[in-house]
Amino acid sequence: MAQKGNLMTVRTDVKVLDATIRDGGLVNGFYFTDEFVNELYRTNVKAGVDYMEFGYKASKDMFDVNKFGKWKFCDEDDIRAIVGDNNSDLKISVMADVGRCDYKKDIIDRKDSVIDMVRVATYINTMPAAIHMIEDAKEKGYEVTCNIMAISNAQEADLDTALKMLAETNVDGVYLVDSYGSLYPEQIRALSDKYVDAMDAAGKYVGIHAHNNQQLAFANTIESMARGVSLLDATMSSMGRGAGNCAMELLLGFLKNPKYNLFLVLKFVETQMMALKEQGVVWGYDIPYFLTGRLNLHPSSAIDCMKAGRTDYTDFYTELLDRS
Amino acid sequence: MAQKGNLMTVRTDVKVLDATIRDGGLVNGFYFTDEFVNELYRTNVKAGVDYMEFGYKASKDMFDVNKFGKWKFCDEDDIRAIVGDNNSDLKISVMADVGRCDYKKDIIDRKDSVIDMVRVATYINTMPAAIHMIEDAKEKGYEVTCNIMAISNAQEADLDTALKMLAETNVDGVYLVDSYGSLYPEQIRALSDKYVDAMDAAGKYVGIHAHNNQQLAFANTIESMARGVSLLDATMSSMGRGAGNCAMELLLGFLKNPKYNLFLVLKFVETQMMALKEQGVVWGYDIPYFLTGRLNLHPSSAIDCMKAGRTDYTDFYTELLDRS
Repeated sequence: MAQKGNLMTVRTDVKVLDATIRDGGLVNGFYFTDEFVNELYRTNVKAGVDYMEFGYKASKDMFDVNKFGKWKFCDEDDIRAIVGDNNSDLKISVMADVGRCDYKKDIIDRKDSVIDMVRVATYINTMPAAIHMIEDAKEKGYEVTCNIMAISNAQEADLDTALKMLAETNVDGVYLVDSYGSLYPEQIRALSDKYVDAMDAAGKYVGIHAHNNQQLAFANTIESMARGVSLLDATMSSMGRGAGNCAMELLLGFLKNPKYNLFLVLKFVETQMMALKEQGVVWGYDIPYFLTGRLNLHPSSAIDCMKAGRTDYTDFYTELLDRS
Repeated sequence: MAQKGNLMTVRTDVKVLDATIRDGGLVNGFYFTDEFVNELYRTNVKAGVDYMEFGYKASKDMFDVNKFGKWKFCDEDDIRAIVGDNNSDLKISVMADVGRCDYKKDIIDRKDSVIDMVRVATYINTMPAAIHMIEDAKEKGYEVTCNIMAISNAQEADLDTALKMLAETNVDGVYLVDSYGSLYPEQIRALSDKYVDAMDAAGKYVGIHAHNNQQLAFANTIESMARGVSLLDATMSSMGRGAGNCAMELLLGFLKNPKYNLFLVLKFVETQMMALKEQGVVWGYDIPYFLTGRLNLHPSSAIDCMKAGRTDYTDFYTELLDRS
């Protein structure tokens, strides 16, 4: 693929998805105040953000509703309490994990729902289950994406097969996901080309969800965009599991579409995100996350290391090397 | 230019320069303890780092020696107190600013000096003065680079002329410097091609010095490398003015040359850089730096904003917009 677009003009196919509540919820157990979610919704609407993800549609049989904030479950009534009928241009999305969502029951017909998009998250070895969920959500009337996680550990042949399988479904878009924050821009460009090649022919778009373990989330996001990826995930102040995601403020500072309003995002960061940080909610780049990213490992051990207040980075690195 | 090298092999032309004391000195007035500088030197030697920059050769007529730490001046004796005769593979560099260095007097013949390299820092409108300094240092026997600063504000025609002027000198290498941290990878690639095209023909190398205002210092460094840039600046934990530089730990985590030792750098970060942070020395990515980077402005106003403890980002942004 050649470069798509340039630094001076607008690519109208490019859209931005705010995943603050969903990926940020992995940091604070989804315990956001209603005021926070309200302000975030209003900011996203006014700032021209295209999609806002409210959280997961997690199974209440598998997860105790008393142990998580409500955005792990995204009940219809809870979303409506924030958005009403969502009379805005902002589309609302939820994430549904393969094997952790009672989708037949919990995802209702779109005509009765305030949700616009369902993002089906899967590992590469559960593609058939993901496709069942995708077709179910499509039949119910939703825009649907498939987010294949942890591809940095997948075999290339399996990834090719997965993309071929998805090209034959009704899915609207497929996400390139750098779950471990381990991929360099050079790899992201090659993967973007692979995804865009496979999906363009099938009339589907490609999205990207990057992690900041190596301070590359923003770079990888805009590099993938320049190769034709068009749905870009970001979170306010990078909030997300471990090292966090591509920062919304960096992304809107880069995009040239005049509909995006950086000022309002800065206002949200200044009022709401700073308050979260002051309350002791911790995320963002740090050495332990760099090390798991560099070794292409799940960030869980780095999260444990950070939570324990450890700064014995060399010991931690040695432990990781023993495991990898 | 085509891509140079790949993610699997070693490019033996690639070298790493540690600029912690020099760029980090802009954060703490060059007041590093001898123990810190000693440990840094020993770490760089053992970790396979190719160059270590000790600081500036600033004019003592212009700058009061009582108002700065000794590494603003880099007296021969002060460097020797750390390195002896530097019986190692590590080369020692200093930076000499056009108009702020009594180079005829303060830069002595290399045969009498422990310094290996002089980096002449200049703005694009003082190229003739820079070239005088370059030829002086070459005659004295040094390896010499020219670091053209603030090129994101230069006219392209002027930059082409400057590169042509330098190609005709005895300078060994020319640096691509993103002083304001305002350049995106796409721009860095184009500039790298321009620099490498101009310098390759003259038998000179190209270096990069990136800033992290938009969390792009590491990405821009490795992207420029993939286009043929071969001398890479980094600092421990990114320490440097404002948002800081490309982090040494990220860079050594990326490079494949087995001579580099990430473990020892992590040990230095864990013991020395953490201590600096605990003492209240502040640097690294933050919203004010992002805003000056995004607007292609000198970071000084962001540094003032941070020092004042301001978090009224929208007010700060409005002030910047009034000035830019």
